[in-house]
Amino acid sequence: MQRLALTQISEPAQSMQLLTDDEPTPGSGEALVQMEAATINPSDFLYVTGQYFLTPTPGTTIGSEGVGRVVAVGPDSDTALIGKRVALLPTYRHGTWATYTTALATDLIVVPDGGDALQLAMLGINPMTALRLLRDYGAPDAPQRWIGQTAGNSAVGEYLVKLAHHFGHRTLNVVRREQAAKDVASWGADRVVIDGPNLDADITDALAGNTLDVAVDSIGGPSSTVLGHHLRYDGTLVTYAFISGKPSELSILDLIGNHANLTGFWLHNWWQRAALAQVRDEYQQLVDLITDGTLSARVNRTFALDDWREAIDVAQTHSRDGKLLFTFPTD
Amino acid sequence: MQRLALTQISEPAQSMQLLTDDEPTPGSGEALVQMEAATINPSDFLYVTGQYFLTPTPGTTIGSEGVGRVVAVGPDSDTALIGKRVALLPTYRHGTWATYTTALATDLIVVPDGGDALQLAMLGINPMTALRLLRDYGAPDAPQRWIGQTAGNSAVGEYLVKLAHHFGHRTLNVVRREQAAKDVASWGADRVVIDGPNLDADITDALAGNTLDVAVDSIGGPSSTVLGHHLRYDGTLVTYAFISGKPSELSILDLIGNHANLTGFWLHNWWQRAALAQVRDEYQQLVDLITDGTLSARVNRTFALDDWREAIDVAQTHSRDGKLLFTFPTD
Repeated sequence: MQRLALTQISEPAQSMQLLTDDEPTPGSGEALVQMEAATINPSDFLYVTGQYFLTPTPGTTIGSEGVGRVVAVGPDSDTALIGKRVALLPTYRHGTWATYTTALATDLIVVPDGGDALQLAMLGINPMTALRLLRDYGAPDAPQRWIGQTAGNSAVGEYLVKLAHHFGHRTLNVVRREQAAKDVASWGADRVVIDGPNLDADITDALAGNTLDVAVDSIGGPSSTVLGHHLRYDGTLVTYAFISGKPSELSILDLIGNHANLTGFWLHNWWQRAALAQVRDEYQQLVDLITDGTLSARVNRTFALDDWREAIDVAQTHSRDGKLLFTFPTD
Repeated sequence: MQRLALTQISEPAQSMQLLTDDEPTPGSGEALVQMEAATINPSDFLYVTGQYFLTPTPGTTIGSEGVGRVVAVGPDSDTALIGKRVALLPTYRHGTWATYTTALATDLIVVPDGGDALQLAMLGINPMTALRLLRDYGAPDAPQRWIGQTAGNSAVGEYLVKLAHHFGHRTLNVVRREQAAKDVASWGADRVVIDGPNLDADITDALAGNTLDVAVDSIGGPSSTVLGHHLRYDGTLVTYAFISGKPSELSILDLIGNHANLTGFWLHNWWQRAALAQVRDEYQQLVDLITDGTLSARVNRTFALDDWREAIDVAQTHSRDGKLLFTFPTD
């Protein structure tokens, strides 16, 4: 088997090497999974460069989510899992950039054989991030609820627009380009605004008197502050990334005068605190929405594991729509 | 009667003039109050310079809280109020920098004749700010609750330390000077730390493994970020002022990794949204704590209304402990 393993905390191209090993033996409660596809996420690069909240040790297989098929189980594992197609949840207890990996059975969600491998490989992180952003902040059950977001055409943005539309929430999306505006509108967005010097006035016009229950930001800097200015009293700006390198920020007048709130989201925090039954139930809901076509994200390109250096190079250039994944031969 | 009235939105010394008028006639539901003492608050200067959330119109009497005695009531007002000593709540519906003012009876709290006039004059703003900061954020009923604050030796800081001590909460206070540290400790503070280059490590030592449920900041800038780093998971940094001119800020790693929250407090927002019965009940609790000596703030100096220019001058120099008030002759 092949696996992409950490050699040292460093720039991605210097941090990993492709190893050929014997297939691992599943331990107690574990399954051996033959990988079919594994997502390449920006957080994987934060992880190997030591900029993530969790720091890997050398030898660790990288890759935080994916889809594959159970080919064996260890002691005390349910033998009914053997032969099942499964998604691997992002627990950082296994590495998915490998032709085979072992994982705890509790970290696996059985998925339909007929589902799209690439869409199912992306189950773990981005769709659940969008679901949590909609369910865990503000007033999820408020009628006529408005959600704002920057980076509306990112993968999380796409899931968020589609999920919000599915739930009957309304979205106001900030994007940077005309084509992105068209893409986001096609997913069911209620409003799309292009970032620029008139952003504040353009959002005012687009909202036509409405205010945001929650504003979601992954960019940071001035656009987050402008979007946050359109929150309702006691509304919440949530940051889950800061692509610009600047933090998300609310104006002091919005904080004090409008009782605006700023907080963050990290999927791992939810995972560690939520009951396992809730985690599995909510992932199952997402599997159903992916399988019936309600949820999807654009895929830009796939790579074989042998081409990992090229994959890293492409991943680190930002002018790209759609996700990158590794795919693996399945005999 | 004399009153200090706004002439124009401007620097404080250019924004007001002392007028001699006939005593006003109380309208429906109102009382005529002969003032005894009125606090000079920093927010009054934000108000006259147009930097506050509410903007006064020329002619408005300035002054947002105080204590006095009801000498007459208008139609539909309870005549039992006549002769009562009352505190005027900070509603911005009356001006207290005047020898006489009219106020809605619902904006008055009857206070004991024997209480200290200066302490009772300060009832409206700072003690209630401290009470709300303790009651409306984080987990007010958590056992072993820790509250952190910057500006521990400010007036709000003094009320907060004393109220927290009264409620059995623990406080960690950041101050800038040795003498301030001694003062804050004498009020019942559990920990006092002096701001400086080792602030983060000093807070770690002082907390000895505990984390803050709520951090209260009125300064902004780096010390707020350091204090916020010691919040528990999902803890809250609350800003109610920004004396440094810089906003309060949480690090992006605390926001995302520790689910820290940043929000603000403005007393007027609470006042406008709380039920009148709750407002009056909670002020009554504070009156009792002021009367029995549990709560007090230091007074630096008092001024006659005729000396308002000197009062403003002293108020705008920051190297001072204790509050400033106007006092009025009471026949």
